[in-house]
Amino acid sequence: MKKLINDKERFLSDMLDGLKQRDPHIEIIEDTVVVRKEKKSSGVALVSGGGSGHEPAHAGYVSQGMLDGAVCGEVFTSPTPDKVLAAIKAVDNGDGVLLIIKNYSGDVMNFEMAQEMAEAEGHHVASVVVRDDVAIDNEEQRRGVAGTVVVHKYAGYLAEQGASLDDIVKKVKEMMSTLYSIGMAIHPCLVPTTGEYGFDLAEDEMEIGIGIHGEKGISREKSASVDKIVNRLLDELFKHTDSSRLIVMVNGMGATPESELSIVTKYVMEALDDRGITVSKLLVGDYMTALDMQGFSLTILDEDDEVLEALDADTGSKYFK
Amino acid sequence: MKKLINDKERFLSDMLDGLKQRDPHIEIIEDTVVVRKEKKSSGVALVSGGGSGHEPAHAGYVSQGMLDGAVCGEVFTSPTPDKVLAAIKAVDNGDGVLLIIKNYSGDVMNFEMAQEMAEAEGHHVASVVVRDDVAIDNEEQRRGVAGTVVVHKYAGYLAEQGASLDDIVKKVKEMMSTLYSIGMAIHPCLVPTTGEYGFDLAEDEMEIGIGIHGEKGISREKSASVDKIVNRLLDELFKHTDSSRLIVMVNGMGATPESELSIVTKYVMEALDDRGITVSKLLVGDYMTALDMQGFSLTILDEDDEVLEALDADTGSKYFK
Repeated sequence: MKKLINDKERFLSDMLDGLKQRDPHIEIIEDTVVVRKEKKSSGVALVSGGGSGHEPAHAGYVSQGMLDGAVCGEVFTSPTPDKVLAAIKAVDNGDGVLLIIKNYSGDVMNFEMAQEMAEAEGHHVASVVVRDDVAIDNEEQRRGVAGTVVVHKYAGYLAEQGASLDDIVKKVKEMMSTLYSIGMAIHPCLVPTTGEYGFDLAEDEMEIGIGIHGEKGISREKSASVDKIVNRLLDELFKHTDSSRLIVMVNGMGATPESELSIVTKYVMEALDDRGITVSKLLVGDYMTALDMQGFSLTILDEDDEVLEALDADTGSKYFK
Repeated sequence: MKKLINDKERFLSDMLDGLKQRDPHIEIIEDTVVVRKEKKSSGVALVSGGGSGHEPAHAGYVSQGMLDGAVCGEVFTSPTPDKVLAAIKAVDNGDGVLLIIKNYSGDVMNFEMAQEMAEAEGHHVASVVVRDDVAIDNEEQRRGVAGTVVVHKYAGYLAEQGASLDDIVKKVKEMMSTLYSIGMAIHPCLVPTTGEYGFDLAEDEMEIGIGIHGEKGISREKSASVDKIVNRLLDELFKHTDSSRLIVMVNGMGATPESELSIVTKYVMEALDDRGITVSKLLVGDYMTALDMQGFSLTILDEDDEVLEALDADTGSKYFK
């Protein structure tokens, strides 16, 4: 298998060992829970997580200004409730804990079970479920994808500002009501645990509306030039908004080279300009990936002064740039 | 061709258009020369560049604390002397210009020709040639690879400190005398201008000692686990040094996912510990890539207080982290 790994059974633990070497400000508890080495003494603590394979999400965002803890499951596998509970207990300083959950049935079930267990032990816990992927028609079933990282940053900023748990939940929900993403791939990801590609694509095909777990998309199409792909994705996104001032994220899927992310960005900005959209903030990079998938996703949300402040605020994470 | 591009003839110009959208602090002159929007009013100005395809090198390092200009050739093609000359003239504030050249015959010829032309017009110009790739035995023929980015950061710091051109050249040359790199790949890069892969690798093969232009390596070997690959590369590097305190860079080749870079880092740190090496600074990320190659390179250099200060100093570049 073409992977830089030692043993597929140790993918997660080896990765976390390496991450700890890369970031001296984190530590790992209970084998798979990443927390800040210096626990915050006050303010709402934020916990996210889910299956691995989306790096730098979520462990790379455990940092001043963003998350307090990330619960890491095996590749594309939800972490168990006991690990989420351990994270809650480790980060709670008495001001409450917010769980930021991507909308996958396993994650929702396990995080909410942990929430109940923590509440039974006297912790004040709330949760929000991110459903930004408009590739899925049914709103309740929409998956949480790259927009989740914007939620991390906004909630992290609000927590630093001393907002209460209730306030953060209210504001994040409001923000999420305008948060929409959709992705595409020209190469599927190779899943280390199975040695299989998530799907197969012919040399002249691309997949529109992919998930971040190697799931097929909603439409297999003939390869196209970037301007056409960008407009194809924007057409989907603009079914859900008529805002003219947007925050925009161009997210690499893990193995998309920097050069191509820049080329995508050029055509995104041109296409938005053609549509009369003002982009008040542009984020470009690998924020939420699917292992070594080649492709990108676009995320949009309504311009908002406080969200803009949050996105520009300092963070210790090297991955939010 | 599986590439997120519009037209292979516009790869460079589309990429630079996108980069300008991503970084409001740069501007593009003469179509292919990236300079800071706010020209430095004093201090030695630094210019680097070369063929494109190594993003974020070099244009991503045009920033406070690093480069003043980057001259971008077409993919894997040296820029012409007139473009280098334009860069020199654009960034020179009277305190002199340093050219940081990777050791490829086209780059060396074209940058040195531009240097002569600039000197004839009264500019004070010096140049250093980076030769860190120990995959090449002959010292004079060694290619400039990821270590070049460490040179950018060190020279950028010295320039910010107000060092003279002569001082920077002297210090950088001293630093480069302990700078060694070597790389490997499990997947070759797909070159957009030709639509061809740099080389072909069977499913169970890897290439040791690759270059950053799709060049084959020095040895094709059976795939191995990361710990074995890391030790294979370190064996090559340690033919050139007996230092016990090192600065270490783990560089992704462009399409290596974050998860695998972390796994590589774990085994690099373990192997160095086994060899009795103290790592005084660890850099991990995509610094000098070869389009969408999957693999990594290791760079080492001797610990040095001033180099450490330089590596930790602030920079406006989002790509040096």
